[in-house]
Amino acid sequence: MAPKKLQVAAAGLGRMGKRHAINFLNRTPRAELVAAFTPDPEEMAWAKVNLEPYGVTLYDDYKKMIEQPGLNAVVIGTATSVHAEEAIQAMQKNLHVLCEKPLSTSIPICRQVVEEAKKHPHLKVMCGFSRRFDESYRDARNKVEQGLIGRPSIIRSQTCDKHDPSGFFVAYAAWSGGIFVDMSVHDIDLTLWFFGDDIQPKSVSAHGIRAVQPELAQYNDYDNAVGIVEFWGGKIAYYYCSRMMAHGQEDTTEIIGTEGKLSVNSNPQSNFVNYYHPGGITREVPAHYYGRFEMAFVQEANEFTESCLDNKPLPVKLSNAVKAVEIGAALQEALVSGKQVRFDETGRRVEGSSKL
Amino acid sequence: MAPKKLQVAAAGLGRMGKRHAINFLNRTPRAELVAAFTPDPEEMAWAKVNLEPYGVTLYDDYKKMIEQPGLNAVVIGTATSVHAEEAIQAMQKNLHVLCEKPLSTSIPICRQVVEEAKKHPHLKVMCGFSRRFDESYRDARNKVEQGLIGRPSIIRSQTCDKHDPSGFFVAYAAWSGGIFVDMSVHDIDLTLWFFGDDIQPKSVSAHGIRAVQPELAQYNDYDNAVGIVEFWGGKIAYYYCSRMMAHGQEDTTEIIGTEGKLSVNSNPQSNFVNYYHPGGITREVPAHYYGRFEMAFVQEANEFTESCLDNKPLPVKLSNAVKAVEIGAALQEALVSGKQVRFDETGRRVEGSSKL
Amino acid sequence: MAPKKLQVAAAGLGRMGKRHAINFLNRTPRAELVAAFTPDPEEMAWAKVNLEPYGVTLYDDYKKMIEQPGLNAVVIGTATSVHAEEAIQAMQKNLHVLCEKPLSTSIPICRQVVEEAKKHPHLKVMCGFSRRFDESYRDARNKVEQGLIGRPSIIRSQTCDKHDPSGFFVAYAAWSGGIFVDMSVHDIDLTLWFFGDDIQPKSVSAHGIRAVQPELAQYNDYDNAVGIVEFWGGKIAYYYCSRMMAHGQEDTTEIIGTEGKLSVNSNPQSNFVNYYHPGGITREVPAHYYGRFEMAFVQEANEFTESCLDNKPLPVKLSNAVKAVEIGAALQEALVSGKQVRFDETGRRVEGSSKL
Amino acid sequence: MAPKKLQVAAAGLGRMGKRHAINFLNRTPRAELVAAFTPDPEEMAWAKVNLEPYGVTLYDDYKKMIEQPGLNAVVIGTATSVHAEEAIQAMQKNLHVLCEKPLSTSIPICRQVVEEAKKHPHLKVMCGFSRRFDESYRDARNKVEQGLIGRPSIIRSQTCDKHDPSGFFVAYAAWSGGIFVDMSVHDIDLTLWFFGDDIQPKSVSAHGIRAVQPELAQYNDYDNAVGIVEFWGGKIAYYYCSRMMAHGQEDTTEIIGTEGKLSVNSNPQSNFVNYYHPGGITREVPAHYYGRFEMAFVQEANEFTESCLDNKPLPVKLSNAVKAVEIGAALQEALVSGKQVRFDETGRRVEGSSKL
Repeated sequence: MAPKKLQVAAAGLGRMGKRHAINFLNRTPRAELVAAFTPDPEEMAWAKVNLEPYGVTLYDDYKKMIEQPGLNAVVIGTATSVHAEEAIQAMQKNLHVLCEKPLSTSIPICRQVVEEAKKHPHLKVMCGFSRRFDESYRDARNKVEQGLIGRPSIIRSQTCDKHDPSGFFVAYAAWSGGIFVDMSVHDIDLTLWFFGDDIQPKSVSAHGIRAVQPELAQYNDYDNAVGIVEFWGGKIAYYYCSRMMAHGQEDTTEIIGTEGKLSVNSNPQSNFVNYYHPGGITREVPAHYYGRFEMAFVQEANEFTESCLDNKPLPVKLSNAVKAVEIGAALQEALVSGKQVRFDETGRRVEGSSKL
Repeated sequence: MAPKKLQVAAAGLGRMGKRHAINFLNRTPRAELVAAFTPDPEEMAWAKVNLEPYGVTLYDDYKKMIEQPGLNAVVIGTATSVHAEEAIQAMQKNLHVLCEKPLSTSIPICRQVVEEAKKHPHLKVMCGFSRRFDESYRDARNKVEQGLIGRPSIIRSQTCDKHDPSGFFVAYAAWSGGIFVDMSVHDIDLTLWFFGDDIQPKSVSAHGIRAVQPELAQYNDYDNAVGIVEFWGGKIAYYYCSRMMAHGQEDTTEIIGTEGKLSVNSNPQSNFVNYYHPGGITREVPAHYYGRFEMAFVQEANEFTESCLDNKPLPVKLSNAVKAVEIGAALQEALVSGKQVRFDETGRRVEGSSKL
Repeated sequence: MAPKKLQVAAAGLGRMGKRHAINFLNRTPRAELVAAFTPDPEEMAWAKVNLEPYGVTLYDDYKKMIEQPGLNAVVIGTATSVHAEEAIQAMQKNLHVLCEKPLSTSIPICRQVVEEAKKHPHLKVMCGFSRRFDESYRDARNKVEQGLIGRPSIIRSQTCDKHDPSGFFVAYAAWSGGIFVDMSVHDIDLTLWFFGDDIQPKSVSAHGIRAVQPELAQYNDYDNAVGIVEFWGGKIAYYYCSRMMAHGQEDTTEIIGTEGKLSVNSNPQSNFVNYYHPGGITREVPAHYYGRFEMAFVQEANEFTESCLDNKPLPVKLSNAVKAVEIGAALQEALVSGKQVRFDETGRRVEGSSKL
Repeated sequence: MAPKKLQVAAAGLGRMGKRHAINFLNRTPRAELVAAFTPDPEEMAWAKVNLEPYGVTLYDDYKKMIEQPGLNAVVIGTATSVHAEEAIQAMQKNLHVLCEKPLSTSIPICRQVVEEAKKHPHLKVMCGFSRRFDESYRDARNKVEQGLIGRPSIIRSQTCDKHDPSGFFVAYAAWSGGIFVDMSVHDIDLTLWFFGDDIQPKSVSAHGIRAVQPELAQYNDYDNAVGIVEFWGGKIAYYYCSRMMAHGQEDTTEIIGTEGKLSVNSNPQSNFVNYYHPGGITREVPAHYYGRFEMAFVQEANEFTESCLDNKPLPVKLSNAVKAVEIGAALQEALVSGKQVRFDETGRRVEGSSKL
């Protein structure tokens, strides 16, 4: 008898939703994509060609989809604003959930998802921080665990996108949660991974500029920002996020320990080609994060599947997803207010400009 | 109705055979692995766990396997000595064939495969030169076609394996065809790709040493060899092959044109991690070719499948596979005899030490 | 008649003083080292062997040295605490001055030097920010001036020393001015160079840890610190300074513009050698700043000489040396106080923890 | 009393001659340039401005120059055709000699220089193979001596110049000795350094093309050539020389041992700058060999000086200079004749197309 495969539904078939659907359809041997939902006619048309012929039932109603008999799990790649609601509904239908980051840009809503998940301890509920599945970050993590760099003490991490002159990100800023929540949340998640999940921020400082998209001012957002998070226990992380790179995606991390350092992607490159020409030697850089992290998403789908089928612990704790957003929101607050945000050792705010 | 998938059988479940089987099982969406053959009990035991539960019928008799109803294609990953025979038998059963390189170490036998293929023009018969499917080599190829380096004139290419002190390669030398046929055939294939399939060798010179495996003398083989192939029309390729690398696999190619140069893998690396320590900065290197070329093999399986299903031209001409072995054999002959081998413009031998 | 050479005296023959003396003795064709001063017997013994035989008159009294007839200039490489006083005395003796950075860790004293210099407009008085003479930084500067990266908007710059377990830097912290004044002053100077001398800081935030030298607490100093300087006009610089590197000196700068980026030293290396071994591929890194910047110091000596002899403008304005210390001191204050320091558009403090 | 300085005369003030003169004038603390010779009026005009004012006596007659009283040494940077004659004349005047490579393109003439030198054992006579003074090559050499790569067994070395479309090298080919003698002689010298001076060639094979300068045919020369030198004792060196590089000078060497590998300059770069732009990340490359090896020439001048003043052994044996030309000439012969050249273990020719 053939081994059981995880029956998965995909919610949302936008840019990232499509990729999740295709990954569960074709690149996750122990899972089967059996259903997909999108409210968007164009995405539905795509699904009729690319999913339906392979046995995927299509829905324009999320609630109906999650009632499909036999379903085991849902991968949520819809707009951020509905992530939490859909995740909660899926859990209530007894489905495992793999949700694109972030759960929500609202911390109380993030917490609702965590609360709901606590009611269903047998369900696997994971927020997809793809970098944890990237082989380079994993290699770095292994080296840290082997003690190669002593005690990790300083992290520098940046998420930098290729400049998109279309204006997309101006409109997107209305609901993205701000540049730190949208972009640096990955760097913050890595910080929790390398420094330890139980680390508590002590102070948060941030500054930003609008260098290429002045229209971001209407949303109190920025196109470049730098922030420092000081943690209790003598550790510091500092972040740079930007939507202004000319050359492509450049997501770089350094983990600096008392006895050594690890860098991830300090020399971005699309592939192994160097082009030698009268102006010098040039290598190309991936234009987008999927060019850098495609295989991490595939790995994520497979490990989520394994975790559901074999009832193994998930590789990322759900509570971290909330903590990362909390720190991101504090950075965004510091950025907008121009004031440092401080926390006591229990994680409580001790001063700062505003309520979260 | 679900689109038709290519029904594939895998012959041979050794190191590379297993990978082909798994790739067709899990990473080739338009193909289905439905059968597998191995004469080896250990491999069969592996297959019972890893293939049979997923609907793959197992055989210890190649001929029986290729009679399985509904079969469309076979991927041959058995020992080189039976490649040709199995390929011919498959064609006679009306099956498409993807055969691991080389077709044979014997040029007449290679030619038999080509002759048989000519009798079945509707069948897709391809010898798997994996580097043609690697995204870096393809990027380099595209840049050449765009004219970025002018007229390609010199190729330097090396296939260098991590030193394996087990002695495996000494025994292997008995039937490998020699280091140039076994290893440099990839570099030769790349040469044909970059210089053009119709290019004709003019002279072949080669020299080698036995630096770490003196026992290779019994098979007239070497553990390091360097060769030059001069082509008619003012082009030169030079090759280095070695089984002595301390650091890992290092397969590097340079394509030098009249107006620029392309290098592929001049900085080998396993991933994007650099480790900074008191001795300097270190990056790791893949230990084996599969660490470097895994995704190329997956791409190969997918393109072969597409070619069969959609009746598209194959990305690699079968006759090239023979030509690459011919040049490799001439290099090996020059290496062993210590004498230059020369050809006229029609490809005929004009002098040299021995008959091939 | 031989062209006139600049007659130079060297004050201080400690680590850096020796190098200045030797550079003016041997590597500055248009200058002659004619005098040297040190109060230290050991340094004097060194000078008797290495300087005196080549026509250099030795002094154990600075004031006497600067009265030596025919002297044109003095290079000051003594302890920071006497830099300013010696510079002022030299000017009063009508001597050009090349002074090691910083003029002083006290801003009022820095300003005294600038005031004195204003009284002697015919004298060349320069504070040696060596990186401005480094060919890589100059190449980057030229590319910025050519407009290759659009408008420089974000600078990341770090000065990171190899960890010295001797405890030297703990004692040194008593009078170094703090890690930002001692180390990041170079990065701040580069910021003024790339953003423009007239740029004004708006806010300064900084955080630090004591990861390997907890004894620094007695001097309110840190072994690793991160700071952000926001400038009026929409520019940000962020800095990292550390005395904890395992691998060597790593001084890296990125200048990020609206249309491109330049990095300097993102791949530190001692030379062009890579070592391939079973653990991977390793390159070494200079252990100290002189390994990285030796030729910049030679260039500095030559350009200072040319400026004096030919009455050309100096390549670095003296007022910048004060401004760099001011910003460094603000970072140090923010670091120690844990509070942001803010300035209005005229450069006046608007809030913050303490007076400078 | 000031220590004695070596009194040096410079013969030839062409491109490289000027550099030697300036290096002995300004960058060789223990030497003084006291005389210079050039037969060329333009070079003489340059010398009147750049050398004469600093105490250098100028000559348009080499023989007169070497009679200048007090002279200790001569650095010969004239045309290759007069190197040997001038070197012999200098020795006969009891002068130490630093001669640009090669001594001659004629092996008998090379040997005359060696014979003459034997008559003056107290004189230091060195042929300037600059790469032996380069810090990267020295670091590699030290690592080999420390045993880091086991037994050096294969050397790959290339000397590749930026393409110069002016046609200069076509005319130059008339008397350069051919591309292998002119360019690869450096790589051959490195081979002797890394494999040992006493190593004997066993066979020499070479092939070339005229890709960008077909006019070279009139001189039987090539613009790209590849050669293999097999040595007695199980070692192989292979070389590539080219005058066709688009990107700049690229002189790369790999020393491959039984337990590791060293590469020198596998990533050519002018400096530490990387430029990030929409086409990727670009670094520049030195346009000429002096951009890569300037400091090696300075080091050479200083070590030659030290050797003369302190009667220390020279860092390069004169006989090697002959041996390197011999091997270069054998490569050139193999290249032109299309035939392998072979030697017995004593270094005697055993077959081949022609007499040297």
